[in-house]
Amino acid sequence: MTDVSSRERAAPPPPVDTDTAAAAVPRDTSRDGQLQRIEAYALSHGAPLWNALRRVPPLNAVVNRALINRAILTIPPRPNPLSTMASYTSWPSLTDRTFDSRHLPPSPAPSALPDLGAATALFARTATRPCPKSTVFFAYFAQWLTDGFLRSDRGDPPDPRKNTSNHEIDLCQVYGLTESVTRLLRSGDGGLLKAQDIDGEEYPPFLCSGGVVRPEFRGLSVVGFDELTASQRDRLFALGGDRSNSQLGYTAISVLFLREHNRIARLLAAEYPRWDDERLFQTARNVLTILLIRIIIEEYVNHITPYHFRFRLDPTVGRGSHGMGRILVEASGQRAGRIALHNTAPELLHLERASLQQARTVELAPYNAYRAMIGVPRATSFAQLTADRTIQRQLRELYGHVDRLEYFVGLFAEDLRPNSALPNLVGRLVAADAFSQVLTNPLLAPRVFTERTFSPLGMRLLRQPCTLGELVRRNVGRTEAQALRTGTITMTWAGWRRQAETGVTRGGRRPDA
Amino acid sequence: MTDVSSRERAAPPPPVDTDTAAAAVPRDTSRDGQLQRIEAYALSHGAPLWNALRRVPPLNAVVNRALINRAILTIPPRPNPLSTMASYTSWPSLTDRTFDSRHLPPSPAPSALPDLGAATALFARTATRPCPKSTVFFAYFAQWLTDGFLRSDRGDPPDPRKNTSNHEIDLCQVYGLTESVTRLLRSGDGGLLKAQDIDGEEYPPFLCSGGVVRPEFRGLSVVGFDELTASQRDRLFALGGDRSNSQLGYTAISVLFLREHNRIARLLAAEYPRWDDERLFQTARNVLTILLIRIIIEEYVNHITPYHFRFRLDPTVGRGSHGMGRILVEASGQRAGRIALHNTAPELLHLERASLQQARTVELAPYNAYRAMIGVPRATSFAQLTADRTIQRQLRELYGHVDRLEYFVGLFAEDLRPNSALPNLVGRLVAADAFSQVLTNPLLAPRVFTERTFSPLGMRLLRQPCTLGELVRRNVGRTEAQALRTGTITMTWAGWRRQAETGVTRGGRRPDA
Repeated sequence: MTDVSSRERAAPPPPVDTDTAAAAVPRDTSRDGQLQRIEAYALSHGAPLWNALRRVPPLNAVVNRALINRAILTIPPRPNPLSTMASYTSWPSLTDRTFDSRHLPPSPAPSALPDLGAATALFARTATRPCPKSTVFFAYFAQWLTDGFLRSDRGDPPDPRKNTSNHEIDLCQVYGLTESVTRLLRSGDGGLLKAQDIDGEEYPPFLCSGGVVRPEFRGLSVVGFDELTASQRDRLFALGGDRSNSQLGYTAISVLFLREHNRIARLLAAEYPRWDDERLFQTARNVLTILLIRIIIEEYVNHITPYHFRFRLDPTVGRGSHGMGRILVEASGQRAGRIALHNTAPELLHLERASLQQARTVELAPYNAYRAMIGVPRATSFAQLTADRTIQRQLRELYGHVDRLEYFVGLFAEDLRPNSALPNLVGRLVAADAFSQVLTNPLLAPRVFTERTFSPLGMRLLRQPCTLGELVRRNVGRTEAQALRTGTITMTWAGWRRQAETGVTRGGRRPDA
Repeated sequence: MTDVSSRERAAPPPPVDTDTAAAAVPRDTSRDGQLQRIEAYALSHGAPLWNALRRVPPLNAVVNRALINRAILTIPPRPNPLSTMASYTSWPSLTDRTFDSRHLPPSPAPSALPDLGAATALFARTATRPCPKSTVFFAYFAQWLTDGFLRSDRGDPPDPRKNTSNHEIDLCQVYGLTESVTRLLRSGDGGLLKAQDIDGEEYPPFLCSGGVVRPEFRGLSVVGFDELTASQRDRLFALGGDRSNSQLGYTAISVLFLREHNRIARLLAAEYPRWDDERLFQTARNVLTILLIRIIIEEYVNHITPYHFRFRLDPTVGRGSHGMGRILVEASGQRAGRIALHNTAPELLHLERASLQQARTVELAPYNAYRAMIGVPRATSFAQLTADRTIQRQLRELYGHVDRLEYFVGLFAEDLRPNSALPNLVGRLVAADAFSQVLTNPLLAPRVFTERTFSPLGMRLLRQPCTLGELVRRNVGRTEAQALRTGTITMTWAGWRRQAETGVTRGGRRPDA
């Protein structure tokens, strides 16, 4: 690694926790790209300087804008000329967004592409490999967030070229993908979403009764519904997302946003007693959508990037001990698994296989083409991706040359960079997409982002501190809040934070090392 | 008028042909706005200077860009915060584009709004009032073009808040509003649209046989179909637009674009013999869409604006004497009616009434609010709109004060400005919308407007001169072209052109005066 000090090389970090674990020599950085290397070094070093910058608001705003623009311009601007509809551009391919947009033209697979099973085996977990930076809460939030717009076709069989996305941050996880679903979820009074009280806390109503979907919820869909028993069905919540019940953390975040919606609606109703249900609901939704956008930029993107610079961050913490709060606090205490090869549990390997298969079906360009797209030199050896000699050897055996490496495998074959939660290529793509998707949201347009759209009260709510921790804190009952004093809602592992705070990162050394 | 010389006042122009006809004193220009007045004066005077500019391409390009940007910025940028869905902004109102977007918030009508019949009567034709600048061909093209995106709801009864537009320049008049309609219109071979030969010329196939829609065309709709006799139905063409058969000029322009599509597809097929029907069709459509966009900017907008500056114009003329060509040449020889009050034929007055009614139903803001929106001072007297004392008196009797004047009436109450085909407010709104709508077309995006999208041949076709005259010339058979030597395809009346060429406009005098 570029920034591994000689001291660190002399005393290698514990094997389970770093990318140099299986490596006698560090990763070959000769093809990292000079500009990228300088930029990454500057941004992930000199923490005191970056901290000082934060105290000069006008300068901070300029740097904020410049870094965001630079992150967005990592990938060419939309619209993409091609989609999965065809290998050439047409009016339908530019306008029919049920087909996936392509960053690069399709690239027929080289004849020597390895067997699907062998490529899938690269993902199978071989040892516990925790992420140096992230908690399980980060993984929960990332899944919940991206499920709002990265929505592969759910047909039977699914069409690998298509999606069911609205292509906007619109909180469809809470409000549903369509207006007709939204109607089913609304109470019709006071702008509220339907809810029930369980142990003094607000939860969505149950979807079913006696294993059958209640009449008022006909039109809501749940992934995997047919495989559930009647008693399992009776414990499903009625929520906008078809995956909202698939996993505890996912459900907890949906409950959190439902409570925040109803909290905002009640505040608006008190402030504007003449407003009808419709206006209260729509204005609460406007406010909640901007809250999510702030969280994405100020909490999620800041966690992903390895930079010391904070994209408009207001750090606060939340506390809790039962129900939704407890789940999220627990997730904030657990380290996430590292995003890497050889770290997928056996029961999930079929998903990696399906992803590989989908990528091959739509003829995604190879890994090196995506490096070139974001301005990083093409790799000429597997040692430029990872210091792990075992992985280098496996990739060489499977693909022969790095030019033939598949995109999907390459994304996860890269070592983490210092301070990162994600490998370089996937991190840059996620940041570029997050910023450009989020900042073009119609609610942020100059003439829309006004008091008229959000109401004066709504604008005040938007100026308050806004992190997921704050959201939890203000959406748990009094008893729970009391009991939660020791908990923290965070995407960043406490061990990493402790080390970052004591300045271990300043020399370029990773806090997990 | 600002620029009417004392010589002109001394010898007033013939009564039927100018805006000062019924006026002893010229229009009060004190509220025209200083900046607008200077700008309009500079752009509509000094023709030799503007002609010289055209011969310095880099400078011409800079001015072209600056003037287009200025025209677009006349109105606030999209997205508009409000639509006709509600009086406040919501996620559905921002994203559901079947509701009309609003430039200004709804404005409940003042109680003193005149009777609908009385307001409609303002439009009834009282004398022949020809337009000083436009031919009937301009009117044909304007109707055909705007029908592609200004599409009021056609329901029964129609919803005055809604539209059936795709909101893009997508040639739906030729290709239909949806992919399923497009499929019905395609021959399935060589990228061609279905066509038939009539007297050696290419026409769309007939929609019906024996008064019944042919099976291959089930799914096409025709406005007013139920009121037609079987023999009338048998003369309908199968075309994408539901109004394509409503009027001869409209049909002629649709036929013209169908022929140009097939001409391009045949050229592509000869150049790229391995391409299948789909790729030939889609690429021909890409090329034809850009041709239309060039025509809008270089011919239509240049005709509308009173400026001497030409937005990238390549003036050419076309010739013809029979069929489609003949219709368009004839329309190019006739003067259009002036866009003004008191100039609507009795049989069309019900449309003015319906427009007034729709504007009242959706509570459009009054005329003065739209003036303020584009940066022109609010009028304080009707004499600032028109020099016509009769109209001033009628408006005063109906509305009392100019602040209560309805938008729709005000648009047409304004006198034409020198060199203009349209009154000031409507002209500025049309130019702003045309440029901003056209220039954001996805086919013009930097990474899309490439040889890959249009093919090398397609790019060569796009660099050719491209006016409606050229389009006609290359899409009539040899015999017709021979016979058409004396004809001209133009939006601009020959009388106006002759006067403009002899420089009568230079002193600010209108060529029609």
